Amino acid sequence: MSEPRSPLADNALELTRALIRCASVTPEEGGALSFLEGVLGADGFDVERLTFSAPDTPDVDNLYARYGNARPCLVFAGHTDVVPVGDEAAWTHDPFGAVTDNGLLYGRGAVDMKGGVGAFAAAALDYIRANPGFPGSIAFLITGDEEGPAVNGSVKLLQWTREQGEEFDHCILGEPTNPQALGDMIKVGRRGSLTGRLTVHGVQGHVAYPHRARNPIPALMRYLDALLATPLDAGNERFDASNLEVISVDVGNQATNVIPADAHAVFNIRFNDIWTLETLQAEVRRRLASAPEGLPEATVRFDPSNSVSFLTEPGPFVDLMCDAIEAETGRRPELSTSGGTSDARFIKDYCPVIEFGLVGDTMHQVDERTPVADLEALARIYRRMIEAYFSRISPAG
Amino acid sequence: MSEPRSPLADNALELTRALIRCASVTPEEGGALSFLEGVLGADGFDVERLTFSAPDTPDVDNLYARYGNARPCLVFAGHTDVVPVGDEAAWTHDPFGAVTDNGLLYGRGAVDMKGGVGAFAAAALDYIRANPGFPGSIAFLITGDEEGPAVNGSVKLLQWTREQGEEFDHCILGEPTNPQALGDMIKVGRRGSLTGRLTVHGVQGHVAYPHRARNPIPALMRYLDALLATPLDAGNERFDASNLEVISVDVGNQATNVIPADAHAVFNIRFNDIWTLETLQAEVRRRLASAPEGLPEATVRFDPSNSVSFLTEPGPFVDLMCDAIEAETGRRPELSTSGGTSDARFIKDYCPVIEFGLVGDTMHQVDERTPVADLEALARIYRRMIEAYFSRISPAG
Repeated sequence: MSEPRSPLADNALELTRALIRCASVTPEEGGALSFLEGVLGADGFDVERLTFSAPDTPDVDNLYARYGNARPCLVFAGHTDVVPVGDEAAWTHDPFGAVTDNGLLYGRGAVDMKGGVGAFAAAALDYIRANPGFPGSIAFLITGDEEGPAVNGSVKLLQWTREQGEEFDHCILGEPTNPQALGDMIKVGRRGSLTGRLTVHGVQGHVAYPHRARNPIPALMRYLDALLATPLDAGNERFDASNLEVISVDVGNQATNVIPADAHAVFNIRFNDIWTLETLQAEVRRRLASAPEGLPEATVRFDPSNSVSFLTEPGPFVDLMCDAIEAETGRRPELSTSGGTSDARFIKDYCPVIEFGLVGDTMHQVDERTPVADLEALARIYRRMIEAYFSRISPAG
Repeated sequence: MSEPRSPLADNALELTRALIRCASVTPEEGGALSFLEGVLGADGFDVERLTFSAPDTPDVDNLYARYGNARPCLVFAGHTDVVPVGDEAAWTHDPFGAVTDNGLLYGRGAVDMKGGVGAFAAAALDYIRANPGFPGSIAFLITGDEEGPAVNGSVKLLQWTREQGEEFDHCILGEPTNPQALGDMIKVGRRGSLTGRLTVHGVQGHVAYPHRARNPIPALMRYLDALLATPLDAGNERFDASNLEVISVDVGNQATNVIPADAHAVFNIRFNDIWTLETLQAEVRRRLASAPEGLPEATVRFDPSNSVSFLTEPGPFVDLMCDAIEAETGRRPELSTSGGTSDARFIKDYCPVIEFGLVGDTMHQVDERTPVADLEALARIYRRMIEAYFSRISPAG
């Protein structure tokens, strides 16, 4: 991180600052994709802008860009939309000002993930300018709907590329993956997510005559106890333990003299590759059936889930990324599957995907910010990775 | 109940039918109090109409009527407002039609409690016509806000009578008290009611990082277990056991990837004279403190309660009522303190109060109805009671 300033570093910082200045709070495009379209198009990328629509959700802009047609094709995936600024008065600097102060770049999206987009764009342009006829191609999959309902974003963008006959070999998703310092962690997989909704069916009545009613709330507590009785698993060498959290209980009874008819709970399970959706749902039903006898009936339904666990197996692609990180930071990153879901859960159906970006500790917070040195180092890591990739990797397909 | 038809019986039925035809769903007066004002005024009652108001509640009409100024003063208390008709299409007869069919009088309020008002009015008028200079007075306290928020009804009406210098010796509240058959039950007291609101304060976070959050929902379940651990008491010879019901649990978290910050529960306790409000609130706090150590903090607040238990002690007044019932039905009623609260909880601060009316099994339901024979028998019971009262009771003083 003590290297002299370079066009690559300058470009990473300036591209990121320009992106931060676009107020692209989901679902607003805010000029961010148009800026990126101009930058990539000027250096020879074929750029497509795609607006997707669906009932009850806002229209969302997306961008697909590709330089070259040869295989292998290395894809960079990311998003330019950001979460709202929150308490704007609490920010040290304008959240869309892209101010650098004492070596730190402030702004909504600085780490999540306009910094990742700026760093990769700078790295790709730097590589292409030096190697215009390189043996392969570089693509960008950039959505404006990662922080929103995720209906009109990556899923439809990926589907569209398949319909166009586009084929990808490997993907780097530039989300902030490092807990503490740049180089800490690559994400090589994610646990899945399953949401269940539990309803206990009692009998409504007057609180003064409880023997004529059947209160569903104590029964709901017993069913939830059964769900929470023991850990689902202890995890394995690839994944953290699966975990069930009850995220809401709801009755909504305003009448203090009425025992309610029904009681509801919502739970979410983050689950590893010990489970499939089918075996996990069966385990939930088995646990509910193990609740004490004689309770009012409970029914459970599961939200549709496209979020099963996945793992990008160790191999040359992962090794190259670790090498690039180690060469720049002096540390070999942990290969992790921890944390929440990401768009990698959609990309994995198209090509192997890993995730590496900035340090995420200020994401979604007031004063979101990144050290400028991190941003520049990330651009160098991506640059090393691109160079190594096209000298060492053969097409997957 | 096999007596020949009489002016008293005819009058009880016709007054009740006229009241049912008034669509007096709370807070609408519907003409019911005006009708009563005309009927009582024509026979020499001094009648006052009182409209009370308060912020955020509808204005409500009430009626106070008194015949005579001498002591003792026997008060009849009741209400002419009714609950909504519910599914009108499911009614056999127009809910405001007051149709008699096969010996049954149909209509909203037939038993709760226009029948009680009609029967007592018929009995009082019959007694006064026969004994115009009787040694005492008869008063009516009729509210239009018993089924509603109860803010602009009996509480303010009673307060107004006190401000006017009115003094009462005994009160009969004409709510439907009989579970199965006329003569089953007099209510001579009621348990109190206390509502508590429990909040558990956790720490919000992402479901994928539960170690950084503190889920309040499992803790809420443990606190509720502590509240429900053992019965509050076993009751005594005067009252049923006290009972705690959890009537709502609420979080309202829509985001399935978020562990919520707080979880809420509402509970209602119906409590007997083993407890005061103070000792009961202390017991709730003691039980919450007995929950397992290390849980997130819980706070409880209690709704204002003017509903402590009360008992009208056995004595000549209760005996006269039982005698009148036994003379008419052949059965001696149970003296009970069971069931929910009633306006008797307010009246008890002014004079001893007992409750006796029709059979309540159809109250608040579609096809609310009473046997016409019950209505006529109730008028005769009230008529016997009035006669006995003024020959046997001295002013309470």
